[in-house]
Amino acid sequence: MIASGNRHTMTTPTDRTIRVEREFDASRDRVWRAFTEPELLAQWWGRGNKLVIERMEVERGGHWRVVEHSPDGETHGFEGRFREVTPQDRIARTFEWDGMPGYTILETAEFFDVGEGRTRVVSTSLFFTPEERDGMLHSGMEGGMAESYAALDRLLAA
Amino acid sequence: MIASGNRHTMTTPTDRTIRVEREFDASRDRVWRAFTEPELLAQWWGRGNKLVIERMEVERGGHWRVVEHSPDGETHGFEGRFREVTPQDRIARTFEWDGMPGYTILETAEFFDVGEGRTRVVSTSLFFTPEERDGMLHSGMEGGMAESYAALDRLLAA
Repeated sequence: MIASGNRHTMTTPTDRTIRVEREFDASRDRVWRAFTEPELLAQWWGRGNKLVIERMEVERGGHWRVVEHSPDGETHGFEGRFREVTPQDRIARTFEWDGMPGYTILETAEFFDVGEGRTRVVSTSLFFTPEERDGMLHSGMEGGMAESYAALDRLLAA
Repeated sequence: MIASGNRHTMTTPTDRTIRVEREFDASRDRVWRAFTEPELLAQWWGRGNKLVIERMEVERGGHWRVVEHSPDGETHGFEGRFREVTPQDRIARTFEWDGMPGYTILETAEFFDVGEGRTRVVSTSLFFTPEERDGMLHSGMEGGMAESYAALDRLLAA
């Protein structure tokens, strides 16, 4: 269950969680910044799609909201609020997609220095119900996430 | 477990939920409006404290935010987003207090006509974890809720 190379490992530790491990070839500081600084986040999270970052108040209680613009003109908004921000170490925030308002997910990301200039990110998503978790698993999120992380690899290598 | 008179009944059907039943001496239409119209909500939800309703977009995907002003000058903000709005019947929304950002609760309220001009409201709160549910149980929320509902009784009688 340890991520090898730059591929992610996805598991379901409980019936309401999804856990993803992924390593990046960059220091913890650089990976943290790519996850939290708007101008960096905008370069990878949208997997090549335009991403408008409307709010990104990275502190406990702060709100965040981003809107992804697909080439076909569709827009998808995502938003939530920061529950915990411990720089370079751990971030917990809520997450919801405009298309399913109120189906809130609690996302926790932890950042580990694994040596040789590499960083492991462990993301855990907690859902209100098993049905909501299963809905996410069947939504194609894994492919989208893999594309985002590949875009992050390219950003970190640049 | 049926509410009698105007007293509420509070139960914990699962380790992540709190369920409250309460009857009101008014029609379902009037009770629905008291829960959803800002000018009415402001008259009872704050239990006599000033309540500033910053947003109250009662529709699927709409946001809500209210700020309660205590006599001692303290303010407490609450906010969330509507997940389902079925007029006079059922409303589901997220709820969080600024003091514990990201500790989101999914609140569902159902409104039942029980005859003789009375309405039963069944509210269910679903928490991400049992610990968060227990924290709410120990917060004094039951007393505050009883005061709010007593203020609503008075509003409906006026």
